[in-house]
Amino acid sequence: MTDNELRQSAGVRVTDGGLRQRASRVVPGGMYGHLNAAIFAPAYPQFFERGDGCRQWDVDGREYIDFMCSWGPVVLGHRHPVVERAAAAQLAKGDCLNGPGAVMVELAELLVDTIPSADWAMFSKNGTDATTQALMVARAATGRHKVLLAHGAYHGADPWCTPSPAGTTPNERADLVEFAYNSLASLEEAAASVEGEVAAIIVTPFKHDSFEDQELVEPEFARGARALADRIGAALVIDDVRAGFRIDLRGSWEPYGVRPDLTAWSKAMANGYPIAAVTGTDALRGPAQTLYSTGSFWFSAVAMAAAKATIETIRDTEAIAVMEKAGAQLREGLSAQAKSHGFTVKQTGPVTIPWLSFDGDADLSVAMHWSSACLRHGVYLHPWHNWFMSAAHTEADVARALEGTDAAFAETRAHFG
Amino acid sequence: MTDNELRQSAGVRVTDGGLRQRASRVVPGGMYGHLNAAIFAPAYPQFFERGDGCRQWDVDGREYIDFMCSWGPVVLGHRHPVVERAAAAQLAKGDCLNGPGAVMVELAELLVDTIPSADWAMFSKNGTDATTQALMVARAATGRHKVLLAHGAYHGADPWCTPSPAGTTPNERADLVEFAYNSLASLEEAAASVEGEVAAIIVTPFKHDSFEDQELVEPEFARGARALADRIGAALVIDDVRAGFRIDLRGSWEPYGVRPDLTAWSKAMANGYPIAAVTGTDALRGPAQTLYSTGSFWFSAVAMAAAKATIETIRDTEAIAVMEKAGAQLREGLSAQAKSHGFTVKQTGPVTIPWLSFDGDADLSVAMHWSSACLRHGVYLHPWHNWFMSAAHTEADVARALEGTDAAFAETRAHFG
Repeated sequence: MTDNELRQSAGVRVTDGGLRQRASRVVPGGMYGHLNAAIFAPAYPQFFERGDGCRQWDVDGREYIDFMCSWGPVVLGHRHPVVERAAAAQLAKGDCLNGPGAVMVELAELLVDTIPSADWAMFSKNGTDATTQALMVARAATGRHKVLLAHGAYHGADPWCTPSPAGTTPNERADLVEFAYNSLASLEEAAASVEGEVAAIIVTPFKHDSFEDQELVEPEFARGARALADRIGAALVIDDVRAGFRIDLRGSWEPYGVRPDLTAWSKAMANGYPIAAVTGTDALRGPAQTLYSTGSFWFSAVAMAAAKATIETIRDTEAIAVMEKAGAQLREGLSAQAKSHGFTVKQTGPVTIPWLSFDGDADLSVAMHWSSACLRHGVYLHPWHNWFMSAAHTEADVARALEGTDAAFAETRAHFG
Repeated sequence: MTDNELRQSAGVRVTDGGLRQRASRVVPGGMYGHLNAAIFAPAYPQFFERGDGCRQWDVDGREYIDFMCSWGPVVLGHRHPVVERAAAAQLAKGDCLNGPGAVMVELAELLVDTIPSADWAMFSKNGTDATTQALMVARAATGRHKVLLAHGAYHGADPWCTPSPAGTTPNERADLVEFAYNSLASLEEAAASVEGEVAAIIVTPFKHDSFEDQELVEPEFARGARALADRIGAALVIDDVRAGFRIDLRGSWEPYGVRPDLTAWSKAMANGYPIAAVTGTDALRGPAQTLYSTGSFWFSAVAMAAAKATIETIRDTEAIAVMEKAGAQLREGLSAQAKSHGFTVKQTGPVTIPWLSFDGDADLSVAMHWSSACLRHGVYLHPWHNWFMSAAHTEADVARALEGTDAAFAETRAHFG
């Protein structure tokens, strides 16, 4: 099917208010990066008007119960009153000043109090800043250069880590050695291949690569990575940018009793306000201090005030348990619906960071059709990237969304026969 | 002198509300990066409470007429009503959504309309994002790897460009070749040393390296760089992150008739809201489209609304001319004062991005003393980094600041005899 046919088959008329055409003149490709709707299914709207709680509205005025949460950041729901009040109070005083505000210290103290592996925090703006900075700390600490990372894992979009080689040089990736996620043998082999040179092992808390079923970490792997890092004197870095604040507020491997030397945080940290952080252990404090790593907006106070309010609210309202409940409701509902419509599906990852794939759907045509139909029925989720729950998803919201997904399953069954 | 003696000699009691001590426990070194007051003179406050117009207040309640403008971003003054209204109106609808808002297109259109060398724009969050992305576009376009950049120039703080080697690897900098700013012979030599491999020449619009007198670009050099880039098929990238929006709204080399292929923008673009951009020519649109370059918060709408309002306000109020007037008043005042107190000083750079150095002050002891005395007299400027004017500096503000600087010159003369 052409894009237009697929749009029509989904019954969705995406006009984007004429913005796509205007954008195509002044933005390369009309859009780029992870929010580029041209790389999802054609029915996806590109431009959004507003958000409230777990709902978003596109510029054509369509309302969605949203399960992408802006690809992670919105963890308490849009316009959360506690977060907005904290941000507004700070903004009234100042945001980008000649130095940080008191709130930077308060936020660092909160992270250190909350995260057992954190003796200190450094702040930046985006996940890529944090993963890059974590590797800099590890390299400064060890005087070594090599970094072990899982094949296919996403650690950001700087030249060293972007999934696309366009615009990067071989030198920029020359210090990386890949291993297979959840394979301790592969990790050991990668380490042995650059013996004595490993500065860091960087790893996501579970396997959340796009286009693939998610995989929880094997506790044996997590513990083995910790032991290996200790044995070879490398830093164990958890890239908790995507998963952080949705699995365990103390860090996503804390349930396994595995504590990293460094953790990269961002996305959900401030409920949509732009901030990232690296937390680390006392042993790495000195090396961290030697870096020159900074940005014009890294110390702006509003995002820090929002982060403090967000983390306190997650803690005080047990928001992760709330998301787990809503996520379980969604997973169970989808499971029953898929079965009743004769689809075999896999639902993978933590229920707070869910994903669904259709068996035998290698070209994603079923997923594309179903997620497009979901859009038409007011449910925004994604055909090939994991979804995100927020604490704003009530039982009624999920139930309402499940009506949409059920209709979408029915239409998908009707379409594919 | 010890830090404490220097503090006392400046008559400033910096308590920072006890925050420095608390910060030292939870942030490596208590602070890091360009806002780390420990690397300025000891009298500098680390933590700030609020800002309004051209004034900032530290957490001890001291008020300053500020000539650092948060190291550049604040170009219209803190809490500028037009910018704040635009940001608030957008925030009430949404900031970080599942796609950009209409404002992304409007902002890209505004940049394309305003900047003659811009046929398109890509957005990100910090200056380093933009310089890095510009080089990615150049590399994608040419299929080449080498980048020519001026010795000592600051292009950001990622491993490829941070001024400190701590935490970086030789490979990350292996594709860079240095030349001497304003020396066309040196630039030609650098290009010849990697003939056929040059993807880009990246250059700041004037030489604004820390610890050194600033140097305006020689028009011959600017035109020669353009001609060389054309001759060897490389992209000419202007890093206008620091200077942009304070010299010429059309781009800082437009007065010389030299147009870049790519420009990196950030800092003053949104009056303190976090945003950066790369603009480029039609020829580079296709290559730009091949990148996977993105960030969780790059498309957030509030900073874009603030950027649109900021740029329109700079344009409509002729803010650069306003800054030039205030900057000239400051420069003339400082010049007369230095002379009357028997100091030989150099004032360098555009008057909107000024700096003053004392002759024969290699160890900066005079600059440290004078800038610390300025602080005590309510004037915030910097001993070894260029300053920034804003359009909020009125004639009365500069006159008031000049009273402070005059007293500081007198005290510095008294101290050094």
